Amino acid sequence: MARPKDEVRIGVIGYGAMGKAHAYGYTAAPVIRRLPVNPKLAVMSGRNENAVAAASVAYGFESWTTDWRSIIERPDIDIVDICTPPGAHAEIVQAAASSGKAVFCEKPLSVSVASARAAVDAVKKNGVLNAIGFNYRRLPAVALMKQLVQNGEVGDVLLWRGIWLSDEFLDPTIPFDWRFDRQMGGTTIGDLGSHLVDMAEWMIGPVAEVSAQSATFIAQRSGPGGRGTVPVGIDDASSALIRFANGARGVMEVARTCARRPCDFTVEVNGTLGTLVFDYTRLNELQIGRVDDDALFYGRRTVRAEHPSHPYAGDWWAIGQGVGYGSSFVNFFADLLQAWPEGPWSPGLEDGLRVQVVCDAMERSVEERRWVTIGS
Amino acid sequence: MARPKDEVRIGVIGYGAMGKAHAYGYTAAPVIRRLPVNPKLAVMSGRNENAVAAASVAYGFESWTTDWRSIIERPDIDIVDICTPPGAHAEIVQAAASSGKAVFCEKPLSVSVASARAAVDAVKKNGVLNAIGFNYRRLPAVALMKQLVQNGEVGDVLLWRGIWLSDEFLDPTIPFDWRFDRQMGGTTIGDLGSHLVDMAEWMIGPVAEVSAQSATFIAQRSGPGGRGTVPVGIDDASSALIRFANGARGVMEVARTCARRPCDFTVEVNGTLGTLVFDYTRLNELQIGRVDDDALFYGRRTVRAEHPSHPYAGDWWAIGQGVGYGSSFVNFFADLLQAWPEGPWSPGLEDGLRVQVVCDAMERSVEERRWVTIGS
Amino acid sequence: MARPKDEVRIGVIGYGAMGKAHAYGYTAAPVIRRLPVNPKLAVMSGRNENAVAAASVAYGFESWTTDWRSIIERPDIDIVDICTPPGAHAEIVQAAASSGKAVFCEKPLSVSVASARAAVDAVKKNGVLNAIGFNYRRLPAVALMKQLVQNGEVGDVLLWRGIWLSDEFLDPTIPFDWRFDRQMGGTTIGDLGSHLVDMAEWMIGPVAEVSAQSATFIAQRSGPGGRGTVPVGIDDASSALIRFANGARGVMEVARTCARRPCDFTVEVNGTLGTLVFDYTRLNELQIGRVDDDALFYGRRTVRAEHPSHPYAGDWWAIGQGVGYGSSFVNFFADLLQAWPEGPWSPGLEDGLRVQVVCDAMERSVEERRWVTIGS
Amino acid sequence: MARPKDEVRIGVIGYGAMGKAHAYGYTAAPVIRRLPVNPKLAVMSGRNENAVAAASVAYGFESWTTDWRSIIERPDIDIVDICTPPGAHAEIVQAAASSGKAVFCEKPLSVSVASARAAVDAVKKNGVLNAIGFNYRRLPAVALMKQLVQNGEVGDVLLWRGIWLSDEFLDPTIPFDWRFDRQMGGTTIGDLGSHLVDMAEWMIGPVAEVSAQSATFIAQRSGPGGRGTVPVGIDDASSALIRFANGARGVMEVARTCARRPCDFTVEVNGTLGTLVFDYTRLNELQIGRVDDDALFYGRRTVRAEHPSHPYAGDWWAIGQGVGYGSSFVNFFADLLQAWPEGPWSPGLEDGLRVQVVCDAMERSVEERRWVTIGS
Repeated sequence: MARPKDEVRIGVIGYGAMGKAHAYGYTAAPVIRRLPVNPKLAVMSGRNENAVAAASVAYGFESWTTDWRSIIERPDIDIVDICTPPGAHAEIVQAAASSGKAVFCEKPLSVSVASARAAVDAVKKNGVLNAIGFNYRRLPAVALMKQLVQNGEVGDVLLWRGIWLSDEFLDPTIPFDWRFDRQMGGTTIGDLGSHLVDMAEWMIGPVAEVSAQSATFIAQRSGPGGRGTVPVGIDDASSALIRFANGARGVMEVARTCARRPCDFTVEVNGTLGTLVFDYTRLNELQIGRVDDDALFYGRRTVRAEHPSHPYAGDWWAIGQGVGYGSSFVNFFADLLQAWPEGPWSPGLEDGLRVQVVCDAMERSVEERRWVTIGS
Repeated sequence: MARPKDEVRIGVIGYGAMGKAHAYGYTAAPVIRRLPVNPKLAVMSGRNENAVAAASVAYGFESWTTDWRSIIERPDIDIVDICTPPGAHAEIVQAAASSGKAVFCEKPLSVSVASARAAVDAVKKNGVLNAIGFNYRRLPAVALMKQLVQNGEVGDVLLWRGIWLSDEFLDPTIPFDWRFDRQMGGTTIGDLGSHLVDMAEWMIGPVAEVSAQSATFIAQRSGPGGRGTVPVGIDDASSALIRFANGARGVMEVARTCARRPCDFTVEVNGTLGTLVFDYTRLNELQIGRVDDDALFYGRRTVRAEHPSHPYAGDWWAIGQGVGYGSSFVNFFADLLQAWPEGPWSPGLEDGLRVQVVCDAMERSVEERRWVTIGS
Repeated sequence: MARPKDEVRIGVIGYGAMGKAHAYGYTAAPVIRRLPVNPKLAVMSGRNENAVAAASVAYGFESWTTDWRSIIERPDIDIVDICTPPGAHAEIVQAAASSGKAVFCEKPLSVSVASARAAVDAVKKNGVLNAIGFNYRRLPAVALMKQLVQNGEVGDVLLWRGIWLSDEFLDPTIPFDWRFDRQMGGTTIGDLGSHLVDMAEWMIGPVAEVSAQSATFIAQRSGPGGRGTVPVGIDDASSALIRFANGARGVMEVARTCARRPCDFTVEVNGTLGTLVFDYTRLNELQIGRVDDDALFYGRRTVRAEHPSHPYAGDWWAIGQGVGYGSSFVNFFADLLQAWPEGPWSPGLEDGLRVQVVCDAMERSVEERRWVTIGS
Repeated sequence: MARPKDEVRIGVIGYGAMGKAHAYGYTAAPVIRRLPVNPKLAVMSGRNENAVAAASVAYGFESWTTDWRSIIERPDIDIVDICTPPGAHAEIVQAAASSGKAVFCEKPLSVSVASARAAVDAVKKNGVLNAIGFNYRRLPAVALMKQLVQNGEVGDVLLWRGIWLSDEFLDPTIPFDWRFDRQMGGTTIGDLGSHLVDMAEWMIGPVAEVSAQSATFIAQRSGPGGRGTVPVGIDDASSALIRFANGARGVMEVARTCARRPCDFTVEVNGTLGTLVFDYTRLNELQIGRVDDDALFYGRRTVRAEHPSHPYAGDWWAIGQGVGYGSSFVNFFADLLQAWPEGPWSPGLEDGLRVQVVCDAMERSVEERRWVTIGS
């Protein structure tokens, strides 16, 4: 059967939680927004044959493979979507870019600045479309927050705070796996912090300097098959002071040892004219308080970020119905497919590198116990 | 091309907001849950040719028609999914059932008890699978609420309250359309109240008696093309006192003239052992307070209705990420397709009739200014 | 020692929770607001000698007595403050008024319309200052709500709802006491509902008609000393539909069998131009949503009802610090003392009678299972 | 008139917002809790004769003076209560202690470690009772939080965060006054941060090391009478990374340039067994989430910190009614008076010094751009 000319064929590398979320995003995008092209889930890869076979069927892929390189070599694949652990990203990006594929890479871009830079160089050199999976930018309320900051609704930004709390690592009996391996999973600064750093720089501008601390409360975890122990290579929790280039100040905290905090993040901006607060547990809302509001109504508004005039909201349901996490992927892929094949795509891997540099500076600050200037 | 034997072909009648939500639900269901069959969006119908053509393409249907009867006559259609205004439901149900189609009918079942009963009779007589679109039952938190009530976690239910507030009709310049036509759109009791009555009876048991009031604040609306005025045939706002057969008492309120209340509903149950509160603006949460909790912790828990042990939650994302309105349809269709073709399906049209009877009793109570016994 | 000419001497009849709250209110008022007179806690009465003696010392009264009539006969007492169970109010009001005392009477005014009217007649005939203890009017946020309604900020009121949930009576092992005795404690409609009815009529205008239901889930309670059982004479929970004279509609619910709902009440007003929501668990806040707000900010503001421009707020702390329940009494007594001795005082016993008439209509509606017109 | 032997006579130095709050606290304490002694507001001092005269009358003091030393010299004064700007605290403490007076000093203890130490030395040398005004410890919910941490309800503490946001200094047209003068008002770290540091150390233990940053966004403010400009000597906003001696990590932020954040502080503790969250805008509540809760109820409880079993709550109102900011002073003074004259009093000036040392370390960290070890 001839390939329809409006079909964009996707190969997803990795079949875990992100693989599912991406499959959902590609599948739902054309229903939620009318698109000029149709994404087709062509192939999914993974190392575990049984698991990837089951996942590929469950998520609606045409086929599967245990050899990710075979995906890159297939001429019918348009977009290589990378959902592996972070430590494997850079190599795959480079291979895909060399084959002229458009690249969607999950965040963080990599586990080191050098490898992240190599990935960026590859997509630049080959001139391929590329995007990095900072999906929370596409939540309607977060997109609205960015728009309001950009439009000057809160004036010049003075302060920013981003806090991400989870309980993923609290239980000391969780055995060692790749998430605790710095070379494969990256740090908690890289995993959770990269989202926060991205939102911060996207809304406010470049980070200039950081001072950070980290703690690993559970230093050893049981090894493969419960035998022996393996030293944990990453931080359970970290926090950082931030100075932005424009003079604003920030505080960031990421932690995976916070009981009954499943995945709670908040981002707040305080400007000369107002305050914006986003709380992920209320993901369809955005708080705004402005100094020029009538004093009789002193306080903050809870904006329902679902009004048709809000970013992305018009694609979805009637106001008041609410969207969930999955909407961030739907909106993301809809944007990318709408721009197919000319682009531009945003955020790109260069944004991923920029974030990697800041996260790396935080890690160095922890190690060297000093303020670290970005780019130093 | 031969039809795959695991394909279930859907014909959707109506292309408005519900048509989109259903298309989304059928499309996303197989990604979210592994299903034994694949739903296929075969055909969509609507009276406006251009609009239905555009919608059918946007939502991914194979074809479209302006003649709903042609869908029912097509031998390849397995499920007829009815998304028209309520006044058209009963006739379509009857036609579809006569053709041996499984029927999914949006709520409310109809705009009169007689026509609703005719619809139920038709599906019974023809022995076809049938379901009524009380989708909120399938929100994880609402399903959890039902489970907790059923398991006796709050003891014997004493009190129930359900309040649904929107601002859909507040603006008096909204012109008359089918929503204001009692024979086509049904009442506000039927539109919003049917969801609340269904949740109440599902969780607590049959309603025995009601006393209700209604108000139509904007009695006339501008007519077609802005010419003349048309009398509004329905209630802007209604409220009802309820006595359940088991002795519990209830209060229900529905209103579409509440400023800055886009679609806010709350349902609360107070039992001899505890309280449960669901607030749709916090749709991933369920509050529970139990009398046997340590007094030191007197208060209510906010349960994140996303734990893998909760209904539907395991199909979705990691805890803390949250789902939206669309998840109710995904979960609903996943359940129906999983039970294909033997069934059972639930809630069925008979549940829709049961709700219609209660709503009708409320309307009679308004008219006759007296308590009305259900079934009288 | 000669009596200072700016002293106003108070006799409080009753020493329970209300006696304490009033003692606190009189004591704190002069610190919170500069007043032209000084309240002096002269005497407290109660039937239990040891208990009243202890309470009078604890709360700072000069003296105590077991004979309330002696207070009324004392020429040095200016204000008789009645904190007894409701069934005893009317007789004391009449005695106090006959002696020319100003009267502050806790709510509800009485347990029957006839006795409430006798109380009002007495204060009128004797021309004494009088007030009824609808203290929640004096919470800053409730006072602000009234002000905003009155100033037309939400337009013409269409809908009102007031819900008061507590768990006071949920435990079936609580023995019978005066609160369950209709002639002494009055009904739950009278106890909790009187506050709600007062706020409704104060903000919106007279109630014209009601339809109500009541339930007594625990019909018998153990008698004195745990011997035998006594039939409960009042409602555990009631609800009512309301039609206001101006065409607005309302719903009221009061219940004392709601687990982990200690004393939660909400009052909401929906008008043609906006919505106001007060939630007592957030007593320093008032929500407002207005139709003329920029659609970009669709939602509701959470107003901190502590801005110096808000009613009462300027007397208290810096904005953001918050007041509690006690502030309602402080503000109330400060208002009364500021108007001493000319008055006017508000709300007066006539307002108490007005509320009593509405509560009585609700009780009759329950009994007669029909809509009852106020004043019929 | 002879002095009653159970009277404790108070002299308050300073008549501003704190003077009012303290007057309220002393006045209301005996009504809220039965105390062995009666506080008497004997004298208030201030430099502005008209203002202090008016305030002393308004708050119910017997007399006033413009000479604070005269208060210390009066033999009838038992407690000297210091409500001046921080820069004046140490000198007054020393004078009062030398005169053998008990001392209550508002926070922060001083504006330098040296002067704070001198104050502590003075109260030690003279053996006088002394307390420092960390009043938030006495909010019922904060006291409950401490109790739960201490009882091990959340296990070993891993993480702490304290954030205090206000908009006090956001408006650049606010002219220079003593609050912007480092020698008189102290820093924002000292003003807001001292409360947070105190709560942190009280609950978790000593701070070992800090890294901090500060910003002064409005560097100049208009001078006296609007003439000229004066350089602002303090931080508008600061943040700090914290390492506790026991290995826990913390983040603190204080800011007075956050629009529509009147006085919002949150304190959170994450331990090996659970999480506790206090939010001052919900001051009658405490959130707790524990890992050993049934997974079916995964989430956090909102504890109403008003149960009679909770600290201080039994002194106040029925559960659900709520207390405000003033309750912290009432509870504080009730504790101090109950322990009169033997003591102990807590927290004492030594606790104030301990906090001063940490705040000073943060300020040095800002200046020297490095981690600073406490006590170094």
